[in-house]
Amino acid sequence: MKNKREQKKVAIIGCGLIGQSWAVNFLSSGFSVSLFDPIEGVVEAAKKEIKEKLDVLKTNGLINDGNLLNYSDKIFLARSLPEVVQDVIYVQESGPEDLYIKKKLTQNIDKVTQEHIPIASSTSGIPASSYAADVPGQSRCIVAHPINPPHLIPAVEIIPAPFTSKIITETVKKIICSMGKQPIELKKEIPGFIVNRLQGALLIEAFNLVKDGIASAQEIDRAISEGLGLRWAIMGPFKTIHLNAPEGIKGYVERYENMYQDMFKSSDLNWAELIKDGLETDLLKLYPLEEREEQEEQRNSKLMQLISHKT
Amino acid sequence: MKNKREQKKVAIIGCGLIGQSWAVNFLSSGFSVSLFDPIEGVVEAAKKEIKEKLDVLKTNGLINDGNLLNYSDKIFLARSLPEVVQDVIYVQESGPEDLYIKKKLTQNIDKVTQEHIPIASSTSGIPASSYAADVPGQSRCIVAHPINPPHLIPAVEIIPAPFTSKIITETVKKIICSMGKQPIELKKEIPGFIVNRLQGALLIEAFNLVKDGIASAQEIDRAISEGLGLRWAIMGPFKTIHLNAPEGIKGYVERYENMYQDMFKSSDLNWAELIKDGLETDLLKLYPLEEREEQEEQRNSKLMQLISHKT
Repeated sequence: MKNKREQKKVAIIGCGLIGQSWAVNFLSSGFSVSLFDPIEGVVEAAKKEIKEKLDVLKTNGLINDGNLLNYSDKIFLARSLPEVVQDVIYVQESGPEDLYIKKKLTQNIDKVTQEHIPIASSTSGIPASSYAADVPGQSRCIVAHPINPPHLIPAVEIIPAPFTSKIITETVKKIICSMGKQPIELKKEIPGFIVNRLQGALLIEAFNLVKDGIASAQEIDRAISEGLGLRWAIMGPFKTIHLNAPEGIKGYVERYENMYQDMFKSSDLNWAELIKDGLETDLLKLYPLEEREEQEEQRNSKLMQLISHKT
Repeated sequence: MKNKREQKKVAIIGCGLIGQSWAVNFLSSGFSVSLFDPIEGVVEAAKKEIKEKLDVLKTNGLINDGNLLNYSDKIFLARSLPEVVQDVIYVQESGPEDLYIKKKLTQNIDKVTQEHIPIASSTSGIPASSYAADVPGQSRCIVAHPINPPHLIPAVEIIPAPFTSKIITETVKKIICSMGKQPIELKKEIPGFIVNRLQGALLIEAFNLVKDGIASAQEIDRAISEGLGLRWAIMGPFKTIHLNAPEGIKGYVERYENMYQDMFKSSDLNWAELIKDGLETDLLKLYPLEEREEQEEQRNSKLMQLISHKT
């Protein structure tokens, strides 16, 4: 029988930015993490990054100090797949976004991981029914897709394949919840899942507005960050419109459905062409690549304030 | 010559929720406001609501106290159009969302308002080139569309018609800025302007996801409020994707354009049918109409915290 600490150990496979963020989430909630990446030196670098991210979260009051006691002793660097999955209660795979690689990797993880242990993938777009189609233990395969920056944003999309067992889905949701994260469960697989579909719908319209010369990317961004986005940080689109009519959503739809339907026609939008036509230049002027890190830090710092305020 | 206080007086025509919010914005920035509504008793009720909203903003530290000195003396209740526009530097019309009424109203306002004073409309969808087409002073007509709740959300869409003078557009933007609001200027008129187009694009996809049984409205709402919305409260969609690839927006588009384009197909979506099929029932269960006021208050309180935190 395992002791309590071992029972709360999880495997992080693939230790790029996403894998590191998962480790931060698990460690800050009292879990132990076992890290593996096939590329030499990556796990050592990841351990450093993870510690830095934990320090920032601590400084911003977003971590319960108790959970960070001796956290350094809770990071295990594994040298192989069989080693990383030893004694874990959960596997989070954050490998490359490539169907062939993900198929192979999932098969290999499945081979060495104890029965009934969930194998979740961070993929932002490949459904488990594709990458785990030929995996013998497919019933424990599931997508758990985090949102960038994953150590801050609470939402995690949970997308079971038709062959994923209900117990696995429930177990994964419980583990996600135990980190203070918010599992968003899909009833069915769909390309892009829901986060990227909602983002995509907004992006397509944003690109269209730029293409048609209605407003600049900067003005569109401000319409969101100083307008709609402030509402959406507090409540989703349905609750928003439900509260925007005295009769609730029905009244809103009666009043505005036609207006919205009239706005949208089919389009032959080409994003890459827009980039070439000046959109990239505009954005690089506003947010130079050299300032990326600084801007990421600013974004994260604001997000942390916002999140600690919301909770 | 006018004294300084008179130079900072504005006319609020139509004193429902939107007109009241405009008055709150102007008063909390040190302006005087002159209120008019054709329906008897409305301006008196509005004055009460305005005071209550100002108190809440003050309690939440969102108003510079100096601007509220003797603010009660800065609210004038007018009994006619000619009276409300007397000695004002700006007119904000928030009448009904009806082309015929807005045409008539704008003509009447234009007749009695001193030359060169901007006449802005709060319309959320009727362009000035429609409602002001036959107005002699059309060059000073413009849309200034606020976002609900307008006393909190900084963004205000500014949509000049082709006949609106550049000086008027600049003056209106300056006045909006002087209230600490954020003017979002459109280069061209378009149905829905940009805020409702961006919201509409997201809503259509949200309705589609519900229609296709992918996720519930509640899960979709959580994907926004616990995910995308937190980012969008900090930055717009373009800056978001620009920061989501090491190479900026170009790299993002190279990687993800196909994914997004593949997600979307034409649809025969019918919102009203979805409402009947259970969507309304679901939402009423989650957010009963009897709790509307409480939920609005909660929303506003969270928004204030978020906004005072962001600034």
